[in-house]
Amino acid sequence: MTTPQKGTLYLVPTPLDFGCDTSAPIADVLPQATLRVASGLTHWITENAKSTRAFLKRVNEVAPLALALQEMQITELPREVHKKGDHQGEFDAKPLLALALKGHDIGLVSEAGMPAVADPGSSVVLAAHQLGIRVVPLVGPVSLLLALASSGLNGQNFAFVGYLPQDSAARLQRLRELETLAMKTGQTQLFIETPYRNKALWEALLKGLQSNTRLARASGLTLPTMDVKCFSVKDWRQQPSGISDAPTVFAIGK
Amino acid sequence: MTTPQKGTLYLVPTPLDFGCDTSAPIADVLPQATLRVASGLTHWITENAKSTRAFLKRVNEVAPLALALQEMQITELPREVHKKGDHQGEFDAKPLLALALKGHDIGLVSEAGMPAVADPGSSVVLAAHQLGIRVVPLVGPVSLLLALASSGLNGQNFAFVGYLPQDSAARLQRLRELETLAMKTGQTQLFIETPYRNKALWEALLKGLQSNTRLARASGLTLPTMDVKCFSVKDWRQQPSGISDAPTVFAIGK
Repeated sequence: MTTPQKGTLYLVPTPLDFGCDTSAPIADVLPQATLRVASGLTHWITENAKSTRAFLKRVNEVAPLALALQEMQITELPREVHKKGDHQGEFDAKPLLALALKGHDIGLVSEAGMPAVADPGSSVVLAAHQLGIRVVPLVGPVSLLLALASSGLNGQNFAFVGYLPQDSAARLQRLRELETLAMKTGQTQLFIETPYRNKALWEALLKGLQSNTRLARASGLTLPTMDVKCFSVKDWRQQPSGISDAPTVFAIGK
Repeated sequence: MTTPQKGTLYLVPTPLDFGCDTSAPIADVLPQATLRVASGLTHWITENAKSTRAFLKRVNEVAPLALALQEMQITELPREVHKKGDHQGEFDAKPLLALALKGHDIGLVSEAGMPAVADPGSSVVLAAHQLGIRVVPLVGPVSLLLALASSGLNGQNFAFVGYLPQDSAARLQRLRELETLAMKTGQTQLFIETPYRNKALWEALLKGLQSNTRLARASGLTLPTMDVKCFSVKDWRQQPSGISDAPTVFAIGK
């Protein structure tokens, strides 16, 4: 008996529109190799099965799927991973990769952008390495990096720190901590917020940061509504600056 | 007299092969919108004019250029920006954008990947914001994020810190500092090295890090030689693990 060759775990990026504005062709943000590989996969691990099926329907329009949607195996990551993050609990993702050990390729996807970056999935990738399963990341949109590049802030030293605390005193303390770090080391600090809280965060930023700190925000990346701006806090304060409730990446730096 | 409408500054990502292995079609890593915009631009700001011309020849094969190469305006960033980084000196990039103020769109590119991320260019982007010029980042490969996603390390809190010191004592000290930070905060630490020094860095990593620290390396991203692995330092030490002199991203984490 020979051991079957193991499958590959592909990290498949998806458009940044969360399925809300699908007017732009998917090939505008996903290159050919990504579409080709995605259309050939029949086994998926995902944050959300419904949005993955919607994504695959869009792929099918430009690169016919290898299998009908209803015949695909689409497995959702457990709720604990969504809530606590991949590395906080005792979650062992190895069982999810059983079919890869038998030779099936598997696609890992999130709701939008690159799985395992500011999104669940890294526990699956880590399990793949532990099982000797090849991991291949495919090219696509990553909001954090599009935001960083277009901010004009230091891209040679930067950090992404996730969400800030919701409590306003704790948020202010964290903000000042990040600002001090950015000023002292030159390391750009990126963070995100749940879109309906954009306005509260934005007001806290304008109020709490030093006037010479540079503050960038990037909304609607890759979408027709895309808007990226970067000014000193002082300059932001001198202009009317409402903020949309579109997904936004924020950054502060020197 | 009416004021002419300002042009847009597009951030144009390029393939990660540094022009060395161009066997893969460019449309495999750059989506349609990126190719379409790049082919329409006639003014460029770049790290290296020669590699930009080579890139544009590849674009031309799939999306015909709006202008013959020799008629394009391709301006190199000054040496000081390459050497010291965009935000270290007194470099003012505004003059480079004079034509954008007159209505011309301009493309910003680096040698490989996304300009202004682990590469020069952020001074140009910052100048654009200051001049009220719209900044639009296009989708393409970004080695840091492909490496992070495929490492399996924490992607919800991470930092990229550039190069480590070359001096071995200083490098070890910096490594331990990054390791302590990663262990204490859970923040994955990414860094890079000039490829011909990969071997020296790799040996220093295996020797200097704690045995339970996770260590990832991602080489040849998007290329046929792509290889991404992540193990504990202990497990790395128990296997033969030479390292190629391909561009590599390193990461340590919990």
